[in-house]
Amino acid sequence: MYDRLKGFRDFYPEEMGSRRQVFDAMEDTAARYGFREIGTPTLERTQMYVDKSGEEIVDELYAFTDKGGRDVTLTPELTPTVARMVVAKQQALSKPIKWVSTRPFWRYEQVQQGRFREFYQTNVDIFGSSEPEADAEILAFAADTLFDLGLSADDFEFRVSHRDILSGLLDAFDADVNSRDAIRAVDKRAKIEDAEYLGLLQDAGLSASQAQQFDDLITAGNLDAIADFGDEDLADAVDNLRNVLDAAEDFGAGDVTTLSLTTARGLDYYTGVVFECFDTTGEVSRAVFGGGRYDDLIEDFGGQPTPAVGVALGDATLQLLLQRADAWPDEELRTDYYVLQVGDTRETAARVARDLREEGNVVESDVAGRSFGAQMNYADGINAKTVVIVGEQDLANGEVTVKDMESGDQTTVPVDEFPGDLDAPTYEDFE
Amino acid sequence: MYDRLKGFRDFYPEEMGSRRQVFDAMEDTAARYGFREIGTPTLERTQMYVDKSGEEIVDELYAFTDKGGRDVTLTPELTPTVARMVVAKQQALSKPIKWVSTRPFWRYEQVQQGRFREFYQTNVDIFGSSEPEADAEILAFAADTLFDLGLSADDFEFRVSHRDILSGLLDAFDADVNSRDAIRAVDKRAKIEDAEYLGLLQDAGLSASQAQQFDDLITAGNLDAIADFGDEDLADAVDNLRNVLDAAEDFGAGDVTTLSLTTARGLDYYTGVVFECFDTTGEVSRAVFGGGRYDDLIEDFGGQPTPAVGVALGDATLQLLLQRADAWPDEELRTDYYVLQVGDTRETAARVARDLREEGNVVESDVAGRSFGAQMNYADGINAKTVVIVGEQDLANGEVTVKDMESGDQTTVPVDEFPGDLDAPTYEDFE
Repeated sequence: MYDRLKGFRDFYPEEMGSRRQVFDAMEDTAARYGFREIGTPTLERTQMYVDKSGEEIVDELYAFTDKGGRDVTLTPELTPTVARMVVAKQQALSKPIKWVSTRPFWRYEQVQQGRFREFYQTNVDIFGSSEPEADAEILAFAADTLFDLGLSADDFEFRVSHRDILSGLLDAFDADVNSRDAIRAVDKRAKIEDAEYLGLLQDAGLSASQAQQFDDLITAGNLDAIADFGDEDLADAVDNLRNVLDAAEDFGAGDVTTLSLTTARGLDYYTGVVFECFDTTGEVSRAVFGGGRYDDLIEDFGGQPTPAVGVALGDATLQLLLQRADAWPDEELRTDYYVLQVGDTRETAARVARDLREEGNVVESDVAGRSFGAQMNYADGINAKTVVIVGEQDLANGEVTVKDMESGDQTTVPVDEFPGDLDAPTYEDFE
Repeated sequence: MYDRLKGFRDFYPEEMGSRRQVFDAMEDTAARYGFREIGTPTLERTQMYVDKSGEEIVDELYAFTDKGGRDVTLTPELTPTVARMVVAKQQALSKPIKWVSTRPFWRYEQVQQGRFREFYQTNVDIFGSSEPEADAEILAFAADTLFDLGLSADDFEFRVSHRDILSGLLDAFDADVNSRDAIRAVDKRAKIEDAEYLGLLQDAGLSASQAQQFDDLITAGNLDAIADFGDEDLADAVDNLRNVLDAAEDFGAGDVTTLSLTTARGLDYYTGVVFECFDTTGEVSRAVFGGGRYDDLIEDFGGQPTPAVGVALGDATLQLLLQRADAWPDEELRTDYYVLQVGDTRETAARVARDLREEGNVVESDVAGRSFGAQMNYADGINAKTVVIVGEQDLANGEVTVKDMESGDQTTVPVDEFPGDLDAPTYEDFE
């Protein structure tokens, strides 16, 4: 007997059915917004990640050397891959490019609640627009997805921030600040003690009083005061954030977006608006998912300058939020019909099953030579709504029996009239 | 600029759209038969494949040692994984177990037409029934899938064979035959010269005349003659094959199944009925896909004896068949509406787009601040059926313009009546 690898998951049908409903909701919402599905490879060259994040990233990757001597990696995220794909066809692709995909990713990290070594993400990105409407469409897509999954505006909030505001504020201080380190400190703010956080800001180059003043500014979130604090670039960043929030309002996501300059996102490649989705009850304590603008990445990958904005919804934290809100789909099998076949009636039973399937119904029938009772138990186990009994006796009379599994009521129906013109005949149609 | 790895594929939206339609057809057909989707990990322990196929298999795998020192492999096929999953929950799972999944697999092999290092398969399996109806349901599912994809019974055939007939025939000769080697020779029969093939049979232990007689028997395919040639086990195997073909007839796959004892399937774990799908025109020269019965594998994996039968449909060869038969879905984007927004009309345009999306339509709108002409070009590029123009002038009159993109006809509509109660309003609704 073999064991499953730690941090990897097997999904059996009941759980997978719920996951599929969630994935479908994300994919369907994305499709309605005109995001187009792409398919992407599982392996990329390791160099792509090293160039972007440094040699130390390899420790967190499933990186290895293939039989042909290539250094390759199981993709830990989609963004570098889609950047590569945009660059590869940048002349042929008409802008804006709007892509979506759902697939697994891999990171070699500590396994804990809501964090696995193999995890799934739905990635949604827009390339080729620096307009606030693009950021807002990403927010609106994410909000609509959660609404479609049964959540309300009371269940979640998008905390919206802006990298250029954070860096513009930092630049406005009379100090030699490492913005990257300071923004990483902001990203850790909610997870560490105040003293440690302020210490990290000081490590990044601010004085103690500057660190406190910076934190006061981003905590208060007074955009007018912030715009006045720095130069024109900072004022432009404030304008951009306001425009994104306005567009998000027009696009129907206004009720769930909230200004939160203490939100920073961990990844270095973000440039403009960034946001994170949180459980309003706080029961799911960390960010459910996040996204933002990354206008420099395509150029860094050797392409023409191409602004970009996107979001990635991960399976594990999204499940935690949906379960908290009682919106996780029921983990149970759904079956429209079980065609119960006893005696020498296989040809007719098969015909009935085929007719019902042709109308799109989920139909099982016996493939294991089981008894009447065993078939009835099985039909119950798969939650069959209706059982159609095709027995020798009935069939001799030109009839089948239609049984409603919830009530237990049953009636006989002429076999020639079943299913007849009905797409999904039930006991009620014949009682 | 980074390059894609050899044997791996990027799928851009047009091609991916076609692939999605094909995957959906397979998944939908499987769902109607009551196959339940499972989710499976990308990595398994390398030992699982070595135990099954020997140390030499590792050369064909993406096998490596992870950061924790585990020898792991990118799964080259699904069967060992589902066998592991059945064994892990064998007490809890009610039989028959009917599973389906679609996902990528990986083999380090030579790249050629229709063969990639990363390829996709839809796997469909039934565990827990040794009855001929289970084999027949696999055949019927596969046939219905191809019918749903637009193929007819003239386009393809399932060549059905039986491992126990081949081995039973071999045992009936007065010779010390290595059945595994002989069956592998049969599997190569169509790809090599007669002399080489007969030589391989002799290497397996048959004399020259026995090899010829064996080949004559499986080529003629006279089941009565074969049943008479060996012992009771051989006669039972012939009966089983006949019963499967009879059940396949009842299940609607009779027109596409044909007896073909020269079909053997390469994999060692098959035990009973095996089959391969072929292009009837021969234009696709190798097997499109195949499947069969593997009754011993679950026990080999440490589980209770559990009969099993399944089929795996691969993306690349299936695409070749569909393209040959002119049934590959059009590789083009589909868009129901483009909401063209010019001037200070964003709020109304966004409302219109949202209303149309709520009815399930695919709706794009401007997120890039483009001109009227640029938006119209874009709408054309994404094959928008209808363009809804929300302009300042029209809107001042309380109207929007609805334009049919095929005819170029357009008309104005009161903005309050659009989309109104219509799910998918078009120019014709208002002309």
